[in-house]
Amino acid sequence: MILPRLPDAELDRLLAEDAPHGDLTTLSLGIGERAGAMVFRARADMVLACSEEAARLLELAGATVTSVRPSGSILAAGETLLEAHGPAGALLMGWKVAQTLVEATSGIAGATRRMVEAARAVSPHIAVACTRKTFPGTKSLAIKAIMAGGAMPHRLGLSETVLLFPEHRALAPDQGFAALIGRLKAACPEKRIVVEVKDAAEADSACAAGADVVQLEKFTPAQVAMVVERIGEACVVAAAGGVNAANAADYARAGARVLVTSSPYWAPPADVAVTISGA
Amino acid sequence: MILPRLPDAELDRLLAEDAPHGDLTTLSLGIGERAGAMVFRARADMVLACSEEAARLLELAGATVTSVRPSGSILAAGETLLEAHGPAGALLMGWKVAQTLVEATSGIAGATRRMVEAARAVSPHIAVACTRKTFPGTKSLAIKAIMAGGAMPHRLGLSETVLLFPEHRALAPDQGFAALIGRLKAACPEKRIVVEVKDAAEADSACAAGADVVQLEKFTPAQVAMVVERIGEACVVAAAGGVNAANAADYARAGARVLVTSSPYWAPPADVAVTISGA
Amino acid sequence: MILPRLPDAELDRLLAEDAPHGDLTTLSLGIGERAGAMVFRARADMVLACSEEAARLLELAGATVTSVRPSGSILAAGETLLEAHGPAGALLMGWKVAQTLVEATSGIAGATRRMVEAARAVSPHIAVACTRKTFPGTKSLAIKAIMAGGAMPHRLGLSETVLLFPEHRALAPDQGFAALIGRLKAACPEKRIVVEVKDAAEADSACAAGADVVQLEKFTPAQVAMVVERIGEACVVAAAGGVNAANAADYARAGARVLVTSSPYWAPPADVAVTISGA
Amino acid sequence: MILPRLPDAELDRLLAEDAPHGDLTTLSLGIGERAGAMVFRARADMVLACSEEAARLLELAGATVTSVRPSGSILAAGETLLEAHGPAGALLMGWKVAQTLVEATSGIAGATRRMVEAARAVSPHIAVACTRKTFPGTKSLAIKAIMAGGAMPHRLGLSETVLLFPEHRALAPDQGFAALIGRLKAACPEKRIVVEVKDAAEADSACAAGADVVQLEKFTPAQVAMVVERIGEACVVAAAGGVNAANAADYARAGARVLVTSSPYWAPPADVAVTISGA
Amino acid sequence: MILPRLPDAELDRLLAEDAPHGDLTTLSLGIGERAGAMVFRARADMVLACSEEAARLLELAGATVTSVRPSGSILAAGETLLEAHGPAGALLMGWKVAQTLVEATSGIAGATRRMVEAARAVSPHIAVACTRKTFPGTKSLAIKAIMAGGAMPHRLGLSETVLLFPEHRALAPDQGFAALIGRLKAACPEKRIVVEVKDAAEADSACAAGADVVQLEKFTPAQVAMVVERIGEACVVAAAGGVNAANAADYARAGARVLVTSSPYWAPPADVAVTISGA
Amino acid sequence: MILPRLPDAELDRLLAEDAPHGDLTTLSLGIGERAGAMVFRARADMVLACSEEAARLLELAGATVTSVRPSGSILAAGETLLEAHGPAGALLMGWKVAQTLVEATSGIAGATRRMVEAARAVSPHIAVACTRKTFPGTKSLAIKAIMAGGAMPHRLGLSETVLLFPEHRALAPDQGFAALIGRLKAACPEKRIVVEVKDAAEADSACAAGADVVQLEKFTPAQVAMVVERIGEACVVAAAGGVNAANAADYARAGARVLVTSSPYWAPPADVAVTISGA
Repeated sequence: MILPRLPDAELDRLLAEDAPHGDLTTLSLGIGERAGAMVFRARADMVLACSEEAARLLELAGATVTSVRPSGSILAAGETLLEAHGPAGALLMGWKVAQTLVEATSGIAGATRRMVEAARAVSPHIAVACTRKTFPGTKSLAIKAIMAGGAMPHRLGLSETVLLFPEHRALAPDQGFAALIGRLKAACPEKRIVVEVKDAAEADSACAAGADVVQLEKFTPAQVAMVVERIGEACVVAAAGGVNAANAADYARAGARVLVTSSPYWAPPADVAVTISGA
Repeated sequence: MILPRLPDAELDRLLAEDAPHGDLTTLSLGIGERAGAMVFRARADMVLACSEEAARLLELAGATVTSVRPSGSILAAGETLLEAHGPAGALLMGWKVAQTLVEATSGIAGATRRMVEAARAVSPHIAVACTRKTFPGTKSLAIKAIMAGGAMPHRLGLSETVLLFPEHRALAPDQGFAALIGRLKAACPEKRIVVEVKDAAEADSACAAGADVVQLEKFTPAQVAMVVERIGEACVVAAAGGVNAANAADYARAGARVLVTSSPYWAPPADVAVTISGA
Repeated sequence: MILPRLPDAELDRLLAEDAPHGDLTTLSLGIGERAGAMVFRARADMVLACSEEAARLLELAGATVTSVRPSGSILAAGETLLEAHGPAGALLMGWKVAQTLVEATSGIAGATRRMVEAARAVSPHIAVACTRKTFPGTKSLAIKAIMAGGAMPHRLGLSETVLLFPEHRALAPDQGFAALIGRLKAACPEKRIVVEVKDAAEADSACAAGADVVQLEKFTPAQVAMVVERIGEACVVAAAGGVNAANAADYARAGARVLVTSSPYWAPPADVAVTISGA
Repeated sequence: MILPRLPDAELDRLLAEDAPHGDLTTLSLGIGERAGAMVFRARADMVLACSEEAARLLELAGATVTSVRPSGSILAAGETLLEAHGPAGALLMGWKVAQTLVEATSGIAGATRRMVEAARAVSPHIAVACTRKTFPGTKSLAIKAIMAGGAMPHRLGLSETVLLFPEHRALAPDQGFAALIGRLKAACPEKRIVVEVKDAAEADSACAAGADVVQLEKFTPAQVAMVVERIGEACVVAAAGGVNAANAADYARAGARVLVTSSPYWAPPADVAVTISGA
Repeated sequence: MILPRLPDAELDRLLAEDAPHGDLTTLSLGIGERAGAMVFRARADMVLACSEEAARLLELAGATVTSVRPSGSILAAGETLLEAHGPAGALLMGWKVAQTLVEATSGIAGATRRMVEAARAVSPHIAVACTRKTFPGTKSLAIKAIMAGGAMPHRLGLSETVLLFPEHRALAPDQGFAALIGRLKAACPEKRIVVEVKDAAEADSACAAGADVVQLEKFTPAQVAMVVERIGEACVVAAAGGVNAANAADYARAGARVLVTSSPYWAPPADVAVTISGA
Repeated sequence: MILPRLPDAELDRLLAEDAPHGDLTTLSLGIGERAGAMVFRARADMVLACSEEAARLLELAGATVTSVRPSGSILAAGETLLEAHGPAGALLMGWKVAQTLVEATSGIAGATRRMVEAARAVSPHIAVACTRKTFPGTKSLAIKAIMAGGAMPHRLGLSETVLLFPEHRALAPDQGFAALIGRLKAACPEKRIVVEVKDAAEADSACAAGADVVQLEKFTPAQVAMVVERIGEACVVAAAGGVNAANAADYARAGARVLVTSSPYWAPPADVAVTISGA
């Protein structure tokens, strides 16, 4: 899978945030010019993400990267994912930033994949869609990570997709579903109209009013199943709110076509071992 | 507690990332100029963080903030933390970015505080120090959050503190602790020399060689206790690697003076309810 | 209409690009502190855009804005759209940048509105959708301008909408419409599948294969009409490629549901008269 | 002609604006790693601009550029201007941004050249100077484009050149031309003093008062000729306001030494054909 | 004098560079919310610069500014230039950045003014022009400072002024002054042609060939006087290279019309006393 | 010594600030594509700094660098430090920016080294620590320069080191040294507690209260010696305020362990000769 890479200017910013003036310890020891080698290995099975960024970041720090596995790779414990060498000053400066980059995003990728696999074991064509509610400021990395894990973005922002929230309705209390959805369809004939609903009756109404997708917010799997049964193929049914790897199979079994989730963004980091040695 | 606020340019960047051209749904419905009100409430007990950023972000989106509790506030379930009003277009544009900002960072603040409280119940003057290994690109928010939760940064980067890693030693195999620590002390008389060690024998050696702090990497509480007993007051003992809220009391009881941890950064978000209504 | 405003940092960048160190002429004359007043008026009928940015820019330059009409306003020749006063140094520094901002974007807004009106005179519910092919680097301003003129963005970028180009097909020559569209629908159940086609036969095939929207590239109105007749309601028909204000009515009459166009981005600027006087 | 290139950070920004997370269609089809080739050709005679930026942008997207013609090249219809190859994901991500970059700026370059040629056919040494009134935010690209077309910038901003507007005079009503120009000459002995005038009498006065250049704002060619005749060589005469390719020869014939214009900035884009094929 | 202010985004960057996470000492002491007051006073006579930036920076840090003198003010020792109050956390965070900003730039302003006064005591209408060779990255502040001190920028960069260096000639060895200056005049009729020369013979040649300004590089005052005598009014004579406050009067007496200098950029900082007290 | 390099985005910003649209003189002469060569040589003995940035900047301008000496090199008068070749347009565009970068920072490096040598001639293990009070906006370059000259940063900012100023005490008048230092030690067990004192009595008190470092502000060498004698090894003694190359030996002789200084930041630039010739 070829995913865009974070621009150099962003990677330089990460480096500068962590080591704006180099590694003081290395500089104080006077060992910055010694030759070293560095290997990144998976400590446990993991789904790799943002290894391209880690590699480039090490290059920007002054190291030479000799091998790197692509984002989306499934790694077994012990497998090497990146090898670099260069002056100690470069390796020690880029080390932890590169490591944290891979660990944090691979944690997301792995959690995503576990959820995708759990759901697809039950429903092979179900889509897992991750929300825009990433940790603030991490959207590029987080979206790359969930894609590396097999999910798609649900919506990347507010400006290019249509999602009618109950909060929109609260501000237009004079209009029912038919009027609201009608306006949305007229304005945006190239977009699907997604409607978030709070109970089965709302789902029925939204669907009847022409919604393309009903997003069931905090429904149990049983409640989802009931809606799916009533709606049939008329609307795409998406389950959202509290959907995670543990219950993904249940929601899939209930017949949801899409699982909308933020849970992978909060996964613990993957565990990567980094070995540094004289070269 | 008065902590610096993320600059407007960063907040504008967060807004622009989520809604570069406004909320398409609101625009399509034509309800953007209707007056609305918005209240943020804690759904469960929580430690508040980055509410100042959320408030400012809503202002940048065009809303008016009428009340906001400061970062570091301890909130009970149901308490209001922020109130705003303004045109629907402004409220709906800033809503989720502001909410996610508070939820993500308050999750960190709460986890930090739980760990601090667990440790201090045993050892009232122990310090909890959070590492620089935040999710890449989130350092400002994450550090503010751990401070709101009662911890301090361990080190913010490589350029202003001295930490001798085994990896430095691997690149200077010709020199023992005495030589290395001697060089560090000479170069940096205004800094404490922190040395990461892998076992008790290394701790002894580092301490004997003049380390100010020995950072015990992945020691059990029992192993930490043994080192503390041998070293006494000669060195500050810091426990690191796998230290978290669940075992913080054990490490505190073992006599560590500092607990070094990254675990709060990976805490799940706090749960904030946002209500939007016509005004 | 409430549309997001360009962030201060961007407006400061525009100012700094034009007058990084102030207006040398004013400084050389030593008249920078004299009080002045400034009025912006429409020289001809126009649709106003980005007046909020112009006003804020003048404030950033040090002036005080006393009135400003909102983006989307329809102005008759001679109408005042913005009034400001302040020290000469501030007014003369911000003047042309503010004026060009309004003129350039109002030109786009006006051209957009003319096209929308031409199309809707024939087909009241037709949508005019402007492409992402703005002058590089002007997306925020250009999208705001077309919205001020009554159009919607067609797609803002590649990452959140699905559009199958012939170029995608050229790189997947082993798969027909059915396979390709099937994959897209499976991957993106929340998106409409838009397919660009080069002739009527392709339109038929794409529609039969499940496309939600067929985008007819460089069809004459007569060819569009033929496709509409054959396809009926099965697919949304969008006309693209060479569609502009002059032929919008023809395409509307032909039955296109959406007109896709870049033409307003290249409209000549609106003509705004700025008067500066001693105050 | 060697002109500076837009920095990578700016090109990355253009890419990220259009495809922040890659081409969703390509990713959904799973064809991103297929090998492809891409050729850019002139559809009609054109003056090329910003091809260096287009090439670099494709490289930043992950493609390999094998040939590119320089900015300023005169291309006949059908001529190839850029060739690249690489994975489909890279080509499809960079395609339209690169194409629009070349089309928009080459449109400006071509319009500039037509105006320069029209004027020089009459007056071989006349200078065409383009104003600073570019579309906001596009100064770097637009100035490169007009230079590629044979013009020079009139003034790039307010801080490094002296231009006495009537608006300056309005704020210094107590001083006549002599006093004002005297102050400007004293303050800026290394700059030419340019004075914008509204009629022939003002031109005379400004010239008599020592202006180096009189900029005749919205004079007809006949009025320009009259001023030239009266002033002779005493002052450089520049014609500004409404000067464009259609009347450039008339103004040249009238004896203007400089034609000041913004018209090329609003030229329609050049038409570039891009072919993408499997490689 | 009204000079543009550094944008907030730049000031936030300065603050963030110095105190990205606040003042650790204040936070550790827990005194951040105590009320304090802050006064900036001149320790010696000084010319004030960038006080507007210092004031705004303190506001961005969270303080309230109650008085500030403008850039360009002449202060006697002991005079107050800025007063602020607010929470200790804000005052202590912004203190030194604001102080250094004023000290560094006022140092430049003062040195500039001393040089201007020395030269004007001899030659009342002489211009002092400071080069573009500021400390890299400080152009905005440095140019504001020299303007506050009464000088003008010589040239702000390479793109808007014409200066023929011997290095240009070295790369065009086939052309003499006449040909080169002829080309420059043809291309840039709105600019003065400045020519740097190494000896009197070159000055004669350049002047004869039509240079508007001859810039005498590292001439002694006596050599300058000789050139002035020979050239008379035909060309503006500028002295450059080694011109500073100590010899400015000599060069003025020699008849130079412009003194070109970088020396004020390297002036020692002005000395500002800052008093912080409980409020 | 391997020190981090300023990111490309920053170097591009420096270039764009000086030559946003190229060298107008070169462009007007039409000589931009001629081949040239460029050599940078020390005019006098100097300590080199930021040559890596100068080299990279020339590359970004379009030149090819064939040799460059590293930061920290000691150069004799006449030695070559950088060689490049390429088209005239590239060389002339990057020339002065690259030269000023090296001159300004090498001036700092040389002054630093002179001070370090003066102090170490007397006290071989003394540390010279440069403050954070660099010219605003130049921290990266200035810190690199002082490191190239053999000094260390004193503190890079407020957020990672502890320094108790009298100003902190003024805002906590209810607490003495013991209470304040106790709080600091409890909060920051991994940091040395540095205390700025105004006289010998304060030094005694701070030391007795547990300060790790007493920073003597504006003490004479004799006063420093007295403090050192009384305090012995109990505290690190740092001399600050007015310490410079001229008195460094005196302060070293007085027994200070650290010399804290800002003086090198205000050193005059080193003198580098740049030769440009046809190639």
